[in-house]
Amino acid sequence: MRQSQLFTKTRREAPKDEVSRNAQLLIRAGYIHKEMAGVYDFLPLGLRTLNKVIQIIREEMNAIGGIELNLSTLQSPELWQKTDRWDEKKVDSWFKTRLQSGGELGLGFTHEEPLTALMREHITSWRDLPVYAYQFQTKFRNEVRAKSGLMRTREFLMKDLYSFCKNEAEHIACYDRVSDAYVRIFERAGLGNKTYKTFASGGSFSQFSHEFQTVCKSGEDTIYISKENNIAINKEVFTEDVKKKLNLGENFIEEKAIEVGNIFTLGNRFSEPLGLAYTDEQGNNVPVFMGSYGIGPARLMATVAETFADGKGLVWPEDVAPFRVHLVELSGGEAEIKKEADELYRNLTDAGVEVLYDDRDLRAGEKFVDSDLIGIPMRIIVSQKSLAEGNFECIERATGHTAYKSLPELIGQLTARL
Amino acid sequence: MRQSQLFTKTRREAPKDEVSRNAQLLIRAGYIHKEMAGVYDFLPLGLRTLNKVIQIIREEMNAIGGIELNLSTLQSPELWQKTDRWDEKKVDSWFKTRLQSGGELGLGFTHEEPLTALMREHITSWRDLPVYAYQFQTKFRNEVRAKSGLMRTREFLMKDLYSFCKNEAEHIACYDRVSDAYVRIFERAGLGNKTYKTFASGGSFSQFSHEFQTVCKSGEDTIYISKENNIAINKEVFTEDVKKKLNLGENFIEEKAIEVGNIFTLGNRFSEPLGLAYTDEQGNNVPVFMGSYGIGPARLMATVAETFADGKGLVWPEDVAPFRVHLVELSGGEAEIKKEADELYRNLTDAGVEVLYDDRDLRAGEKFVDSDLIGIPMRIIVSQKSLAEGNFECIERATGHTAYKSLPELIGQLTARL
Repeated sequence: MRQSQLFTKTRREAPKDEVSRNAQLLIRAGYIHKEMAGVYDFLPLGLRTLNKVIQIIREEMNAIGGIELNLSTLQSPELWQKTDRWDEKKVDSWFKTRLQSGGELGLGFTHEEPLTALMREHITSWRDLPVYAYQFQTKFRNEVRAKSGLMRTREFLMKDLYSFCKNEAEHIACYDRVSDAYVRIFERAGLGNKTYKTFASGGSFSQFSHEFQTVCKSGEDTIYISKENNIAINKEVFTEDVKKKLNLGENFIEEKAIEVGNIFTLGNRFSEPLGLAYTDEQGNNVPVFMGSYGIGPARLMATVAETFADGKGLVWPEDVAPFRVHLVELSGGEAEIKKEADELYRNLTDAGVEVLYDDRDLRAGEKFVDSDLIGIPMRIIVSQKSLAEGNFECIERATGHTAYKSLPELIGQLTARL
Repeated sequence: MRQSQLFTKTRREAPKDEVSRNAQLLIRAGYIHKEMAGVYDFLPLGLRTLNKVIQIIREEMNAIGGIELNLSTLQSPELWQKTDRWDEKKVDSWFKTRLQSGGELGLGFTHEEPLTALMREHITSWRDLPVYAYQFQTKFRNEVRAKSGLMRTREFLMKDLYSFCKNEAEHIACYDRVSDAYVRIFERAGLGNKTYKTFASGGSFSQFSHEFQTVCKSGEDTIYISKENNIAINKEVFTEDVKKKLNLGENFIEEKAIEVGNIFTLGNRFSEPLGLAYTDEQGNNVPVFMGSYGIGPARLMATVAETFADGKGLVWPEDVAPFRVHLVELSGGEAEIKKEADELYRNLTDAGVEVLYDDRDLRAGEKFVDSDLIGIPMRIIVSQKSLAEGNFECIERATGHTAYKSLPELIGQLTARL
């Protein structure tokens, strides 16, 4: 994309009411716009980045047999009354609204109820199980205090997968498969070595659930990491009893962390009240054994932003960056340099490389400041100097490392993993 | 995808409360699920089809310089009060809700206000214009009577593009470009020869807007088509005065039609009250001249469904079908046939062809009934008979035309346009 076509402008200062680092940087760089506290718009750069995160998650969900669908936001009370989650004294995060034609509706904050009810039409026999269904869907949560930029918002995209299994043994195998997929997702998003599978409080059907927690100073959670076991315990369940039970030794490091994912055994919590059962091989009617598994793509994007940003701005890992290359021409109006840059842009995009091309008529200093702020992994500069060198000047955003490369070298490097 | 992995089951009867043909068929074939009146979930087949429609629209919007973003659902009153669209006496389709922390919010039924306000941070000079920004975003409309299945719903995805131009002349050029893009979209969706650009009522800044209307017996609108001019007039403006003014002669055919798109000149309707202005080349402060352009992807999908369906079920045109091929094996448990079908499935998917593979252990009759209902363009049957032929039996869903083809012939045909 030509930057002259990208309507967003960077800004030197974040809005005064924005205190979180992720939102400050993402607003300054033109990735997001704050609509109100806890509600953000995604501008072109932000939407591209979010879509990269979504695509990583989708691929990993598909790889374990997940099947994608999309449920509605508007929810009618009946189902939620059956599971005792309609009453605002029980669930305080509802946004509710009214139909003109009469009757109250809610905006879904999660989707166990409608999906469980829907599955009654499709799951009847042991032959129909297991099913792993997931969606990328916007949730609404009436947070009293929205905070931490994209980390805790009132409206947010969620990847929620729900598993439907014959019994606990089948469920555990599924739970472990999703857990492994989550490890790959955080790895691909660049957070692999900072993210810990973490014991957290469970529910009626299991003592623990698991969270995936990324170590980050601004995190809301506190976790205790056992480095030798590569696992952590959330402060909420970090008791002597639990430590003994889990047998993880005595060496724990306390860290602040951001919950980037969670996996949860639901058992029959929803299938029983909603009547989702199947006939087993012996002809018995058995409730379906369920689990749920969430990742917030925008929260993950914000965690990546906050983890890697430096004093100059954002620093995206390759797989989630909005573009792979930021091509900056310093022609100062000179036709020969402009032509060289145009040609490189065409050659790279023809080779399938995603390029943001700064073709704007601005001074080098301004272009570099913008480029640092936007944080695309590789900057390629086409200038009088690079023309004289006969090669292109390439600078890694993360390290500042500079090298001169020929077109074939560049294409080889940039398309190696396409 | 293996059909044994697709959890949805087809059904012989639509739910009794569903009277529209598109929803009856889409529910029976397992594409959608009705959550309540005017609110539908998209099941895997439905989501795939919807995504095909979305991708066609996205490609055509990008081709005319559109840039994609995504705005929030939750809307705060201030902006909408400035344009006098907050009051429910003025706009009766709001769903409204309340923050726990105090204050009323609305669920966006359109996005002129927030996008216009947002653009104030990015558009300041004539150099910044024009901008064409669009999104695929879920709208909420508090319809008193939801009806016609996916045609008029309370929650629906909308592609809404907004244009920001320097003046009316620049706007008209943009308007015509979007109009041409819409023609290509309906063409690609298979509705080209049934869809008419249609004069409809305008607003303060133009006498007319334009709708794209697809002729269909169940349509809610009435249009008058001038075949010789390949254009139509909506009943709401079909007066002697208008006919004279447009100079379209006297030959009109009255038809029922579905509005599948609309394009609208907004002028300064939103930029003035919200203060979106730019500095022109002479240093004057000038309000930005706007337009808006909508297509509902699910309504378009439903229109395609309703247009082509026959007595046996859905009939998708190639470009919007959830899969290109429905591979049906009739092995009856015979290993040799099963192996042949498995191999064909692998060969086709390896070649990039999207295949739904009916590998279920069912009788031929049941598989064919399902296949007709689901409506994938080409059915390929692997059976004792095809094995004896040495070729695969291919049946076109739309025509019933049958031919025997070799693997190279099939791959050649199916990948010709990939």
